[in-house]
Amino acid sequence: MQLTRHTDYAFRVLIYLSSVEEGKLSTVGEIAEIFQVPINHLTKVVQQLGKAGFIITLRGKNGGIRLAHDPESILLGSVVRAMEATLDPVNCSQPLCRLKINCRLKPILNRAIQSFIETLDEYTLADISQNKEVQTLLVTEL
Amino acid sequence: MQLTRHTDYAFRVLIYLSSVEEGKLSTVGEIAEIFQVPINHLTKVVQQLGKAGFIITLRGKNGGIRLAHDPESILLGSVVRAMEATLDPVNCSQPLCRLKINCRLKPILNRAIQSFIETLDEYTLADISQNKEVQTLLVTEL
Repeated sequence: MQLTRHTDYAFRVLIYLSSVEEGKLSTVGEIAEIFQVPINHLTKVVQQLGKAGFIITLRGKNGGIRLAHDPESILLGSVVRAMEATLDPVNCSQPLCRLKINCRLKPILNRAIQSFIETLDEYTLADISQNKEVQTLLVTEL
Repeated sequence: MQLTRHTDYAFRVLIYLSSVEEGKLSTVGEIAEIFQVPINHLTKVVQQLGKAGFIITLRGKNGGIRLAHDPESILLGSVVRAMEATLDPVNCSQPLCRLKINCRLKPILNRAIQSFIETLDEYTLADISQNKEVQTLLVTEL
């Protein structure tokens, strides 16, 4: 059981954006280079973060991306909810599980997923922001 | 974020074995047919359940499998711990995340996974056993 790489990269983008100098715009290319991850995948992640309202994209020559809200107001569980394709703990439909109608396991698994998200919601993006580390990355030879 | 099919099938096998008549031995073929899942995959699941001490395999012509313990003593979290290939919420090593050494996110994600498992550990196999439903499946035309 693992978060998708999509959500993993979303966290890295948000950590990065919350850690750079205030007011500074960043680019997807810069973040892809820092984390050495594919720019195509990161572009999709950034688009979804934009649609979900976590970041703002400013177009044009001097454009870029920045956080749409203060890091203190972004709950970590909300990132998982927005980025994971599914929070369904098991797939009972393909193939169709014959216990589906009266299953007693599924509600318990759903409760466990809820606990997972609620634990994340005890923290905000500000708790995982890493100013010093990101500043170091910015000056480190790649 | 989803449990692997391996763990999903493990739960189905355990639900089945906890629901059949006491003392009765079951076969992998019978369970594969009931749930209409591939017998090869189910065989691997059953082998792992055996190694982890959840079930006992009796060999020979009249052999089969049965639970090794009372359903009341099998915590649901222990099934996930035994069957999931990883409970590492993200893969920070491939590709290597450059924030890995000082990451503040990973300990929070690990705490959330812990909450997931602890919620499951509030329940036992007896809570998800389905005697009536399995009896119905056994007599249902496939």
